[in-house]
Amino acid sequence: MTSWIVVAGGAGFLGSHLGERLLTDGHRVLAVDDISTGRWANVEHLRASHGTAFATLQHDIRTDPTEAIADATNSEPIEAVVNMASPASPPAYLSRPIETLEIGSVGTQNLIKVALTHDARFLQASTSEIYGDPSVHPQPETYWGNVNPIGPRAVYDEAKRYGEAICAAYERHHGLNLRLLRIFNTYGPRMQADDGRVVTNFVNQALAGKPLTMYGDGSQTRSFCYVDDLIAGINGLLWSEHRGPMNIGNPVEFTMLELAEVVLKATGSTSEIVRHELPEDDPTQRQPDITVARRVLGWEPKVPLAEGIDHTVQYFRSIAGDAQSEL
Amino acid sequence: MTSWIVVAGGAGFLGSHLGERLLTDGHRVLAVDDISTGRWANVEHLRASHGTAFATLQHDIRTDPTEAIADATNSEPIEAVVNMASPASPPAYLSRPIETLEIGSVGTQNLIKVALTHDARFLQASTSEIYGDPSVHPQPETYWGNVNPIGPRAVYDEAKRYGEAICAAYERHHGLNLRLLRIFNTYGPRMQADDGRVVTNFVNQALAGKPLTMYGDGSQTRSFCYVDDLIAGINGLLWSEHRGPMNIGNPVEFTMLELAEVVLKATGSTSEIVRHELPEDDPTQRQPDITVARRVLGWEPKVPLAEGIDHTVQYFRSIAGDAQSEL
Repeated sequence: MTSWIVVAGGAGFLGSHLGERLLTDGHRVLAVDDISTGRWANVEHLRASHGTAFATLQHDIRTDPTEAIADATNSEPIEAVVNMASPASPPAYLSRPIETLEIGSVGTQNLIKVALTHDARFLQASTSEIYGDPSVHPQPETYWGNVNPIGPRAVYDEAKRYGEAICAAYERHHGLNLRLLRIFNTYGPRMQADDGRVVTNFVNQALAGKPLTMYGDGSQTRSFCYVDDLIAGINGLLWSEHRGPMNIGNPVEFTMLELAEVVLKATGSTSEIVRHELPEDDPTQRQPDITVARRVLGWEPKVPLAEGIDHTVQYFRSIAGDAQSEL
Repeated sequence: MTSWIVVAGGAGFLGSHLGERLLTDGHRVLAVDDISTGRWANVEHLRASHGTAFATLQHDIRTDPTEAIADATNSEPIEAVVNMASPASPPAYLSRPIETLEIGSVGTQNLIKVALTHDARFLQASTSEIYGDPSVHPQPETYWGNVNPIGPRAVYDEAKRYGEAICAAYERHHGLNLRLLRIFNTYGPRMQADDGRVVTNFVNQALAGKPLTMYGDGSQTRSFCYVDDLIAGINGLLWSEHRGPMNIGNPVEFTMLELAEVVLKATGSTSEIVRHELPEDDPTQRQPDITVARRVLGWEPKVPLAEGIDHTVQYFRSIAGDAQSEL
């Protein structure tokens, strides 16, 4: 019997994909989630396909999860703990500001203690948000960031910086077997429909036959990584012996106009594109420097935008049917 | 009967001076301290001079202090809560890395809750360390800082950044009546003898008749604020209606050679100055921009270096006697 891998945030967008990958590779997975932004629907298929190798636990990691995890795993060995638990989109964390801070601080620490108890690897899902509004492009792991400590988004950004600091402190002073991941923008099936991101907005607007909301002239660029590529990188980092932070993301940039055209083609929509003024707090542009991931893991993103958008459109089509049937 | 002011870290270097000032101004003060880096000896004289207007509570704020504070104040009204609780010198926080992180996060939050319960002002003692290794000189409050989130000092710097973020979040979302103070290097009586700072080192080396350790050629500059000046600024901020962060510190720089000469004169020591190579992690140079404090409070530092060093020397002379009598 293989030992367990605990994935906190395991019913979320990225956590559910990582759990699926780990199960496919023959591991046993316990998905821990408080279902505040995750959904059990994201992992229902795993229960069917993987039986007792997959377990779930509804728990808020701000409360010590030691006992609940022991119950859910029959006190069997735990090989790795992955911390993907946090509201991650601005609408999600801005509606839960204090909770987001607590999850990043107390929640992270609670999971670190579980990993230490089991002498397990600990993978901390940090984020490109720790780079803030960067003055260096693209951002290497050595860049220290430019974050406003008292801005509205600090509830997420500073919680994630604190998360890195406490992980590094446990690694330095208590021998934590740490893997520190910095995730850049990702898209794909199981994104939250209300995450406010441009991919989600465009796809759902196109599917609803509504105009696509384009801020500015559409020439501004962003980089997004397709979820399967991201998970391949995370899995590589988890089992590597690399120490120190690692960026995982797609450095290829595309314009918002290119994205809109890809979405219209994938959906077959005839929606028009409606231009709005750029908001004052236009999302910050970030682009990963993935030199470290390339060198250490031989990893790089492979899925072209059109293909990733096709999968994403199929997903939102399928849950649109579910949502209607729930009415 | 006036209401209480709770000073967490009230037996520490700055907390004991602030408590003294508040008592002198007619307030009642509860000094809360876990005596990890503070010392009750710092406030013994206040008990004698102010009687029941001064109370003490030995408590670690990482554990909810609500009940203990209610007991110590007879559940009487609390007008203000001041958070000065944290190890603050590198030797102190590097020897307690996890505790320092917890004090900045959970400890700060516990005190915020006390303030909210009592509808009290909350003064958060943040630090120039949130500016890290600044790329802007001097540092205005609008500067976002340059901190390594996973460096050894992150246990303090990121804890303090998180502290600012959670204060700002409670102000924005829960109506916390916040005063956000950023303290720059300060010196004076009741500094910890082992705080590793250059003023403390020079004074104690001179008093012991040992050579003064000078790193580099002594031409590098630093700015230090005498504690009485700092306390005047803090007191001004506490009772002001200013919102947003405020730097309090002394922008006047002096060279390490000037400091050594002032110390030798104040102590009457004939110690020689011994030059060592600059260490790799030579302390970062920071200098406060105090435009905001000048404009809002009409505050600026007044005590000249020679006078402040005189007071500091007198203090270390007096406790050197105490320390010997304890042997």
